Amino acid sequence: MPATPFSSSFLTLQPRFNTYVNPIFRSLTFQLSSSFNANFSSHRLHSSLSPAPETDSPTAGRSGALTPAPAVAADVQKIDVNPPKGTRDFPPEDMRLRNWLFNHFKGVSRLYGFEEVDYPVLESEALFTRKAGEEIKDQLYCFEDRGNRRVALRPELTPSLARLVIQKGKSVSLPIKWFTIGQCWRYERMTRGRRREHYQWNMDIIGVPGVMAEAELISSIVTLFRRLGITESDVGFKVSSRKVLQEVLNCYSVPENLFGKVCVIIDKIEKIPVDEIKRELRAVGLSQDAVHELLQILSVKSLTELEERLGSGGEAVAELKQLFSLAEKIGYSNWLQFDASIVRGLAYYTGIVFEGFDREGKLRAICGGGRYDHLFSTFGADDIAACGFGFGDAVIVELLKEKGLLPELNLQIDIIVCALDEDLQECAAMVANILREKGQSVELVLESKPLKWVFKRAARVNAERLVLVGNSEWQRGMVGVKVLSTAEQYEVKLDDLK
Amino acid sequence: MPATPFSSSFLTLQPRFNTYVNPIFRSLTFQLSSSFNANFSSHRLHSSLSPAPETDSPTAGRSGALTPAPAVAADVQKIDVNPPKGTRDFPPEDMRLRNWLFNHFKGVSRLYGFEEVDYPVLESEALFTRKAGEEIKDQLYCFEDRGNRRVALRPELTPSLARLVIQKGKSVSLPIKWFTIGQCWRYERMTRGRRREHYQWNMDIIGVPGVMAEAELISSIVTLFRRLGITESDVGFKVSSRKVLQEVLNCYSVPENLFGKVCVIIDKIEKIPVDEIKRELRAVGLSQDAVHELLQILSVKSLTELEERLGSGGEAVAELKQLFSLAEKIGYSNWLQFDASIVRGLAYYTGIVFEGFDREGKLRAICGGGRYDHLFSTFGADDIAACGFGFGDAVIVELLKEKGLLPELNLQIDIIVCALDEDLQECAAMVANILREKGQSVELVLESKPLKWVFKRAARVNAERLVLVGNSEWQRGMVGVKVLSTAEQYEVKLDDLK
Repeated sequence: MPATPFSSSFLTLQPRFNTYVNPIFRSLTFQLSSSFNANFSSHRLHSSLSPAPETDSPTAGRSGALTPAPAVAADVQKIDVNPPKGTRDFPPEDMRLRNWLFNHFKGVSRLYGFEEVDYPVLESEALFTRKAGEEIKDQLYCFEDRGNRRVALRPELTPSLARLVIQKGKSVSLPIKWFTIGQCWRYERMTRGRRREHYQWNMDIIGVPGVMAEAELISSIVTLFRRLGITESDVGFKVSSRKVLQEVLNCYSVPENLFGKVCVIIDKIEKIPVDEIKRELRAVGLSQDAVHELLQILSVKSLTELEERLGSGGEAVAELKQLFSLAEKIGYSNWLQFDASIVRGLAYYTGIVFEGFDREGKLRAICGGGRYDHLFSTFGADDIAACGFGFGDAVIVELLKEKGLLPELNLQIDIIVCALDEDLQECAAMVANILREKGQSVELVLESKPLKWVFKRAARVNAERLVLVGNSEWQRGMVGVKVLSTAEQYEVKLDDLK
Repeated sequence: MPATPFSSSFLTLQPRFNTYVNPIFRSLTFQLSSSFNANFSSHRLHSSLSPAPETDSPTAGRSGALTPAPAVAADVQKIDVNPPKGTRDFPPEDMRLRNWLFNHFKGVSRLYGFEEVDYPVLESEALFTRKAGEEIKDQLYCFEDRGNRRVALRPELTPSLARLVIQKGKSVSLPIKWFTIGQCWRYERMTRGRRREHYQWNMDIIGVPGVMAEAELISSIVTLFRRLGITESDVGFKVSSRKVLQEVLNCYSVPENLFGKVCVIIDKIEKIPVDEIKRELRAVGLSQDAVHELLQILSVKSLTELEERLGSGGEAVAELKQLFSLAEKIGYSNWLQFDASIVRGLAYYTGIVFEGFDREGKLRAICGGGRYDHLFSTFGADDIAACGFGFGDAVIVELLKEKGLLPELNLQIDIIVCALDEDLQECAAMVANILREKGQSVELVLESKPLKWVFKRAARVNAERLVLVGNSEWQRGMVGVKVLSTAEQYEVKLDDLK
């Protein structure tokens, strides 16, 4: 796609589904970018989410309204009908899916006793400009506002969480258990399941130094997966601890302040050539031996082997063993595997780190998190033990699609109300309101329309009943009711309507 | 407050409640800006929303964890603990209020058969830079992204709605009934109930030219007010039609393309001196007589008088009469009053306009909307009849506070689970998960804590029951249960836990 702000698709007016379940729908259109051209199952294709075009004119301009005078044309400004590159609209079908997913996030969070919080999408840039060489810093949507403040669209939620916790100080009791579902922004190359904005579900525990906290977080995610129908044969967690690297660095007397930087470099190991990794590690001052040992340890895939290499006295091994034991007891050990190559890309992690992955290896990480016991002090406050995870809304939808687990979500209205005569429209509005007062969701037909149209509309909104306001019935204080699934018809007194 | 990006409140660590219900809590703190210093009832003051500080140390750093080496201090970057000026954090107590309010928005929208949608917070700047002299244009949070696109944080939702409707084209059937609850941004001077970001609930009907649509929209808002406990003695709607002004302009042969501009100028009538209004109107080319007549008509406060002035043949009078008649029939006419001075500040309105206001006259408009039948053609598409409203999340909270209608919303956990012995923590985690699988929300105590602490915590999270995992019970496959409201205590088998 061209990098100009307005692409060539001005006002194409074709049914273009720029959607939450992007790949499926995009594959229907000619505006397909190759990176989205994956071969997905298409079982949602013919659902009501993409209703057939109807025959009504979309230009129901009102006769006698202000006529568009020639001079108005001067103000016409052809707009790009697409959202900015890398962003999404949420038309109704996609919004239903988003709500469905977010409700699962919320349900699980509350099941675990977490409270919901949120922060501004726009934060001070300083909150995110750590000096560890993280990718995230170069991808900031940042600018200067009209008051000359450097601000940024948040690329992640954890720094805001830390900011709020510091602000609250002693007014909140520890441990804090908070969750957020917030939109985050990164200006980056777009690939499958990755856009420039995404929503991220975060759960964080502040004030608990022990591994019980990490176990609780992973348990929450497992519960989410299970609720979505995903099993341990679909998804697993790779788990390690940054203390593994820390212990290696300690052996070589590498200064503590290099720790974040080293982790950020090592995290890139699957993206850039290993020689480049080595070069970068040497460049920050690590010895050849330290670099060699660091890269060696990354290949360790079992706790037993790790223990052989590091000895059993260190925290890394002890904590990892405790976490696996807890997982066993709670009942999700089948989901976990130790993998020393897991480091995570954020500079601030200090202990256990983990990453959810699809076992088929088709997708990017589904979620990731870990312990960050020193983030608070980098912001100038006292440190508080803390851990948390981020879980995006994009990769999980890809996975659910792959597994055929996306739900059919339709608009569902209780009753559609229609006047049979233009003169009765006020009466129909009255009827609609009587029903709404009784808690029924009502689609009121707002114009004079042929019955055929009304039935079509009723089907589209999946109405259970159709209430018709006709003249002769109205005279008798009655309306006609049709149960749409059975075609059963009857009359009912206005007072008895429900 | 100083206009520097970092105010003087670095890391103050006092309990500072930067909250959704800003004024109440701010009045508790010394960081009070005079414009927020209103005299509010304070019935929420001592709710659980501001828990008393507990005695735990907030710095539960883990012994033996990476020690903050001196070199780390070099990376310390004292951050401002406050969100950027004009923005909000949503700590748990404010998030509960936000969810409560948004759930009302959603509930009403669904009751009326509307589908939820959303658009990107970041849109192309071109979507908002109309040339009618609107305030909104000068208040854009806009910038150039890393791909040299001019983008803006959306100041309102309607242009995005129009963009999406145009994009969807014939693939959606009319009428479209959509609602959104979206965050909007305006860089402006902050006054009571106005920040630089707010959430706005929008409902729009696309494709219905008749006044039934406006009646449906106002009916929705009335339903919301009623559900919140607000009556017609608290709130009313001022209603007019832009066609009133249009008919005056037509008399003086003012070109159609000036219409939006004229409306935008007239809308400022309560903010700037009338002589300045006159000057601006003359400057766009209106005659002295036209200006005089326009300003005269604004003072009309009854439909009867309007009809006397404009005659009964025009659309303005006919449509307004029909709307009032509909309101009568549906049962909310007590909420409405005609007021020709209502124009609304957005350039694109073309017909009926309305504004919700508090009858005590203390607050800004609570909501506002109207018909915008020509917005689509200004974007280069065919026109579609359309109307909608925006309803912010700030003024309504002020009003609810004034009226003592804000709910008490507390965290509510079903069960708190605690091990009586550090060795039993894994068992407690297991018990928590058994209960969660049965749908109970469970706060698991993640550390070894004295019972006194546990009871305090249980009270804070409003737990109904406390489940204690003790050694002797565990040996027998049992746990202890305490019902916290009655202090009733019993033992229960693990298998019978629920």
